Amino acid sequence: MIKVAVMGYGTIGSGVAEILDQNRDVIAGQAGQDVELKYVLDLRDFPDSPVADKIVHDFKVIEQDGEVEIVVETMGGLNPAYPFVKACLEAGKHVITSNKALVAAYGTELLQIARDKNVNFFFEASVGGGIPIIRPLYRCLMGERIEEITGILNGTTNFILTKMDKEGASFEGALKEAQNLGYAERNPEADVEGHDTCRKIAILTAMATGREVNFEDIYTEGITKITDVDFKYAEKMGTSVKLFGTSRISGGRVSAFVAPVMIGKDHPLYAVSDVYNGIMVRGNMLGTSMFYGSGAGKLPTASAVIADIIEAAQNMKRNVRLGWTSERQAVEPMDRVSFRYFIRMAGTYRNKEQDVRAAFGPVEVVELYGMDEFAVLTREMTEGEMKAAVSGYNASEAERSEYGVKQTIRAMV
Amino acid sequence: MIKVAVMGYGTIGSGVAEILDQNRDVIAGQAGQDVELKYVLDLRDFPDSPVADKIVHDFKVIEQDGEVEIVVETMGGLNPAYPFVKACLEAGKHVITSNKALVAAYGTELLQIARDKNVNFFFEASVGGGIPIIRPLYRCLMGERIEEITGILNGTTNFILTKMDKEGASFEGALKEAQNLGYAERNPEADVEGHDTCRKIAILTAMATGREVNFEDIYTEGITKITDVDFKYAEKMGTSVKLFGTSRISGGRVSAFVAPVMIGKDHPLYAVSDVYNGIMVRGNMLGTSMFYGSGAGKLPTASAVIADIIEAAQNMKRNVRLGWTSERQAVEPMDRVSFRYFIRMAGTYRNKEQDVRAAFGPVEVVELYGMDEFAVLTREMTEGEMKAAVSGYNASEAERSEYGVKQTIRAMV
Repeated sequence: MIKVAVMGYGTIGSGVAEILDQNRDVIAGQAGQDVELKYVLDLRDFPDSPVADKIVHDFKVIEQDGEVEIVVETMGGLNPAYPFVKACLEAGKHVITSNKALVAAYGTELLQIARDKNVNFFFEASVGGGIPIIRPLYRCLMGERIEEITGILNGTTNFILTKMDKEGASFEGALKEAQNLGYAERNPEADVEGHDTCRKIAILTAMATGREVNFEDIYTEGITKITDVDFKYAEKMGTSVKLFGTSRISGGRVSAFVAPVMIGKDHPLYAVSDVYNGIMVRGNMLGTSMFYGSGAGKLPTASAVIADIIEAAQNMKRNVRLGWTSERQAVEPMDRVSFRYFIRMAGTYRNKEQDVRAAFGPVEVVELYGMDEFAVLTREMTEGEMKAAVSGYNASEAERSEYGVKQTIRAMV
Repeated sequence: MIKVAVMGYGTIGSGVAEILDQNRDVIAGQAGQDVELKYVLDLRDFPDSPVADKIVHDFKVIEQDGEVEIVVETMGGLNPAYPFVKACLEAGKHVITSNKALVAAYGTELLQIARDKNVNFFFEASVGGGIPIIRPLYRCLMGERIEEITGILNGTTNFILTKMDKEGASFEGALKEAQNLGYAERNPEADVEGHDTCRKIAILTAMATGREVNFEDIYTEGITKITDVDFKYAEKMGTSVKLFGTSRISGGRVSAFVAPVMIGKDHPLYAVSDVYNGIMVRGNMLGTSMFYGSGAGKLPTASAVIADIIEAAQNMKRNVRLGWTSERQAVEPMDRVSFRYFIRMAGTYRNKEQDVRAAFGPVEVVELYGMDEFAVLTREMTEGEMKAAVSGYNASEAERSEYGVKQTIRAMV
């Protein structure tokens, strides 16, 4: 019999309690013994819940109870999650977390404490919700040199972009609907500005390289500047726009970014819609594979926590090799990363052709009927080159008191 | 240092040798020690290959060399693969195979020998080529009650169906192209009649239930009767036809089948095209997730073998819990399984409406311009009910010396 404590009885924590109960027999079979919930730590009481008699308010009860061998952290945020998790590991308990902020900020230290104490620190649920992705990286693709990980890692923004794509909604309208449905927070910044995706791609990059990645090194751009007009062009081009977290690894160099990207129908992530997540992994031998599923939600995310509990139960006496070391992985400056670009400009292409070609070289042109603007798809160039080209073009337009570039979206088409 | 032998230097075996060499450092890092290829068993010599000096022709060399702790079987077929693998396990060696026929026919016995000898019998590459699916079932979804596994598990048939769908090719034309490209064998029966998919879904069903599944119990229908006319209707309906291997598990009862199925654009497997494979897994807590990638090919499949080698290397002294027991899982008779059906009939709907409704009840009608036939989409009914309805309809037509049903395809729309 293994005793578990859950810290934080919110959406995910209550899901973990629910699955521990409902799938008790499956879990016992896989873990090799019964797994029982002993405590739930929360500031609140839940008198009508099935865990009413397990609620404790004092972390010390869990920390000091030697019978509790596995602790699940589903509080979110850094404080008190960080000191609590650290104390549990130092007390020789296995810790499982769904908290991407914690893993992105303190993962290196917590992984090292787990190794030193010969316990495990698992975090499958911190990325991709119910989609197995952390474990496949250390259990299934171990013989691969990972060359790229690209994910649609945030269900809220994917829901908004899908609404804009399929129904012609504006960003504001789609955000409002997401908020009404409970998919987006009242303050949606962490999602729509890409911060959530940034922490997740930082964790995946660290898993793939085996080195610490500072999420602050990753260029991060959200979806707030994407408009319904962009999707009108996308429709004509047979493309869509998705918020990608991408990491490319080549010869020890890593480029990583979070940004809306225009992709075509043949991209493996094109069909990942609504609140679903999808993660593409390219290995040097395997080629491209893709993992798809519910990136959030109570039970899917809790299911990933349960898988971690079972792996901990199967490895009570040994530290499973995973994660990364304190060696810092450098991330290339964004200016050196290359893309094609979808660029919208004021005016008509016929009048601007010379300026466009002077600034951007050869381009593909896309025109919509009845719009006083046009769009081009550039050749592949670095961000630095693109910025110089946009500046040059805008300067030539400004000389004539005319507007220049209205929108720039990276493109993988 | 761990010494490995590879039995069979064909496509996959040579891929394994290549990755062991090219990704040597990655593999050593994950395995915790160097992994070296010592022997390659083949009837032929390969004087110009990088493994020329490792070729042996006599299995006994491998069986009797105590230094060889991991043996990879990539010969295919049952003889001599079965006696060789059995002998290796009995000699206390870990065995890894890519051979679905072997696993489907003798997996139960080989898994038990591995348990008895405290070694491992792994077979990730036997299903889905490079796509991790066996390992996710025992490493990632362990806390789930698996309710459904549906896979596009055969790249050859998926290539043929994609050609028919996207280019209007006939079955014969698409098959010929697949043969010319090397995707289909000269004798394509194992692929196009569904036998390959049958063995794979049998293995996945056994993994999901923990019980032995006799692949001969699984209703298996190939794609040879699918025509370009079917795809004309599919285009009008916004659907496609894919060869599914499906297993549904509910309350200890299992229904499993291999058959072409008509699906809509919102099915997670709709976008799995060409030679790619995709496997959808539905769990009671997780909901739907999907794994996508190269279902065949030298390096992707070999990469799955390498992952098995690494897991064996990490568990040299213990049997990893996976697979199934000798308890037999019953499979429901196909007549009791329910679908909607896409049915094409001779004549015009206007003239046949009464007979159609008498036999099938309410239906959705699909008509193509200029065809002396029409199609209907029935309500959900069991196979038994459908067969009775088709017989009844055909009898009523025959009375009038008219043709009846021309085609029946199961539909999940």
